[in-house]
Amino acid sequence: MTDHLSTTFAALADPTRRAILARLSQGETSVTELAKPFNMSMPAISKHLKVLERAGLITRGREAQWRPCKIEPMALKSLDEWLDQYRQFWEQRLDRLEDYLRELQGKPPKKPKDPKPPKKKRKGVK
Amino acid sequence: MTDHLSTTFAALADPTRRAILARLSQGETSVTELAKPFNMSMPAISKHLKVLERAGLITRGREAQWRPCKIEPMALKSLDEWLDQYRQFWEQRLDRLEDYLRELQGKPPKKPKDPKPPKKKRKGVK
Repeated sequence: MTDHLSTTFAALADPTRRAILARLSQGETSVTELAKPFNMSMPAISKHLKVLERAGLITRGREAQWRPCKIEPMALKSLDEWLDQYRQFWEQRLDRLEDYLRELQGKPPKKPKDPKPPKKKRKGVK
Repeated sequence: MTDHLSTTFAALADPTRRAILARLSQGETSVTELAKPFNMSMPAISKHLKVLERAGLITRGREAQWRPCKIEPMALKSLDEWLDQYRQFWEQRLDRLEDYLRELQGKPPKKPKDPKPPKKKRKGVK
């Protein structure tokens, strides 16, 4: 069995699926509409949608004729929470780069920053 | 050919590889040390490291005897930048949830927030 975070990462490891998400972030739409700009067969698009749906990144309406696809942003939030543990590392890397560039330009190093306050956590709502 | 972002997402779609990254965020280490907690064969660990290395998520030292593995946080920053376009969607979703919970508890709705200022962009350093 694959863990949920792995399923989400795997679903995003494809440029067509990321393009579908970008389209759906503008509003829900039918599969037919969604397929148009991609120049793909309906079965190919449907397969991508199933992968996104399994990962919880989209949901589909229940109407028999027109099953609109809708983005589910909370699945992306779980990636953001995972990334959070590494944020300090790239921030430090950028700070060092910035200091190095200032040194090359003969400018004084920037004052050391105050440590960042922890990200505000929402209370009571998951 | 696979685009870089897809390679990064695919590399992270595995719990062992994410655990390796978490370990390396505590400091660089040898493959032998890295393999210990995973109860995996060296070839299996080496395979995971190759996937992480191809995605630019780690680098390995050049010393012949001891090739320490090191996390490369900038590859994770590119995921963060991709996620940024969706941040407003989960924030809105959470705001609506919060308002709904307040309504259930008979509390007045929260004052609408000021629109968030755009995230500070670093200048001159890529």
